Amino acid sequence: MPEIRFNRITGDWVIIATERAKRPEDFVRQKAKREVPSYVPTCPFCPGNEDKTPPETFRLPGLDRRWAVRAVRNKFSALTPEGEVSRQGIGVKRSVAGVGLHEVIVEAPEHHLATALLPIAQVERILRAYQHRFLAFYGDPRIEHVIIFKNHGESAGTSLEHPHSQIVGTPVVPGQVRARIQEASRNYDDFGECLYCWYLREELGEGVRIIKEDELFVAFVPYAALSPFHLWIFPKRHAACFGDITDAELSGLAPMLKEILLKIYKGLKNPDLNYVIRSLSPQEGPTKYFHWYVSIVVRLSTVAGFELGTGMFINTASPEQSAQFLREVPTATD
Amino acid sequence: MPEIRFNRITGDWVIIATERAKRPEDFVRQKAKREVPSYVPTCPFCPGNEDKTPPETFRLPGLDRRWAVRAVRNKFSALTPEGEVSRQGIGVKRSVAGVGLHEVIVEAPEHHLATALLPIAQVERILRAYQHRFLAFYGDPRIEHVIIFKNHGESAGTSLEHPHSQIVGTPVVPGQVRARIQEASRNYDDFGECLYCWYLREELGEGVRIIKEDELFVAFVPYAALSPFHLWIFPKRHAACFGDITDAELSGLAPMLKEILLKIYKGLKNPDLNYVIRSLSPQEGPTKYFHWYVSIVVRLSTVAGFELGTGMFINTASPEQSAQFLREVPTATD
Repeated sequence: MPEIRFNRITGDWVIIATERAKRPEDFVRQKAKREVPSYVPTCPFCPGNEDKTPPETFRLPGLDRRWAVRAVRNKFSALTPEGEVSRQGIGVKRSVAGVGLHEVIVEAPEHHLATALLPIAQVERILRAYQHRFLAFYGDPRIEHVIIFKNHGESAGTSLEHPHSQIVGTPVVPGQVRARIQEASRNYDDFGECLYCWYLREELGEGVRIIKEDELFVAFVPYAALSPFHLWIFPKRHAACFGDITDAELSGLAPMLKEILLKIYKGLKNPDLNYVIRSLSPQEGPTKYFHWYVSIVVRLSTVAGFELGTGMFINTASPEQSAQFLREVPTATD
Repeated sequence: MPEIRFNRITGDWVIIATERAKRPEDFVRQKAKREVPSYVPTCPFCPGNEDKTPPETFRLPGLDRRWAVRAVRNKFSALTPEGEVSRQGIGVKRSVAGVGLHEVIVEAPEHHLATALLPIAQVERILRAYQHRFLAFYGDPRIEHVIIFKNHGESAGTSLEHPHSQIVGTPVVPGQVRARIQEASRNYDDFGECLYCWYLREELGEGVRIIKEDELFVAFVPYAALSPFHLWIFPKRHAACFGDITDAELSGLAPMLKEILLKIYKGLKNPDLNYVIRSLSPQEGPTKYFHWYVSIVVRLSTVAGFELGTGMFINTASPEQSAQFLREVPTATD
């Protein structure tokens, strides 16, 4: 019988459709992606074309190259960086000026290397760039919320092939984020403990959905994963804000993120995916009830009318089987 | 400057990206869909193959054919119709047995006719089938929520070409539905009026986003439309439950729904789309704070990391321009 599981962190019910469940192997990409060259002369993110991007806001130097990671303003920014956060409200209508920050983080000089294939040291540089821009964005008093995300592959929303992440600062707290904060604080009031710490402890106790655990981080397919191979990476240390990540944690997240992305890349043959870093603002301080984490969504299913009309997802893969599959994908370099 | 609009009904902020906005014409499908035959011998929904579907639960007779509309159990049901709604809860985990109802409504004997191209009388038959199955589903004491939806086209989640809708009854109230009920009831407490009635009155007063209005229904692109051509059809009469639709309203919704679908079909050249009927349960009675309606989502954009991580949407079409475009699409039959 199918099972409807409650995802206490997102507040959503998920149908785990065991009747029409597929085996993990059924999700492996069938059609090979085309070969990508390591350098494309017309790509604005390839070395030598630095003057083709909007102004650079951050740079980490490379060993024998001019840069290892760059952050630049997004040429097709959804929000405009200049202006005041003016509000308007008439009757049922309410609006805020579309002021905000939107940057692209170019992950490496190489055009062809997916994040999963970069050296650990390079992944660490990307994470350092994330932290730097995250804190810089929150330094702007107009910004209420910052989201770091990555779109990998066309169905995940990428339009540029050269590996890059994005960071957006909005002048409002998104409704979904607000709802999760409320859920988490209600849980804290109810149980006197961070919901995420509790969740993590139970996942570790049960073990069947854990993909990898080390001293600082745990990667797992959550009990009520919304879609096949939907997974989370939680820091073990309670902290509400990604900006508060320690140097040791930053160095520890790099091999964990790389390993998990590589397992997905190898096991499912480079599927399209998104990841996001969910975090509270540094202004919230060392809040007891929220916990930052990385969420990875492999894009293997279509959102249809049922999902649009209910917000409920139908997951056609067993979280336990998905976790086992990824756990067993070897990642040792050849 | 872009504008961030608050959708009071969904509780979401939407970025209306005027800077990178496209003109309505830019959304017109470029690649023609392949010709679809009117009858496919192997299609389980084509006449003569009635024994290839799971058991029929409802039928409306046709004039010179054996049936005009059929409802059958979904062969690939997400939920199982037999069993008790047993609950389990250990620690952070909570689950409900995957018991529920899931049927397919075959919209017409013809294999090739999109809903937009069916005669009004046939659209009315489909709506009658919706109402019948909706009430029948709620007659099952295990069912807490019923959603009627339609997936048209591959990117909208259709796997079968023959025009059909679906109806699902779940043994839990979806979190998203619960959140909207809370939003609506809070608004009622605050203003003493149905949020939807208020919204509709303001839209009618402003007029710029109205596509079509008649005595009983109004079709409009909402002020904070989540995506290009996202639109709503509201009944003018306040009613929380679709099951309470009157005969006159049912006969009135048919030409309105057909006209709007036809404007989309002609204006945007048969794009993929979903529609859903959002409604409370009949058990809620004649609630003052909720209002049933039809929501149509044309599938023209990709959900990427930003949307996944925030729940905020970036709409690259102006709601006012989208409404004007659809208003002007002629629908007179040749």
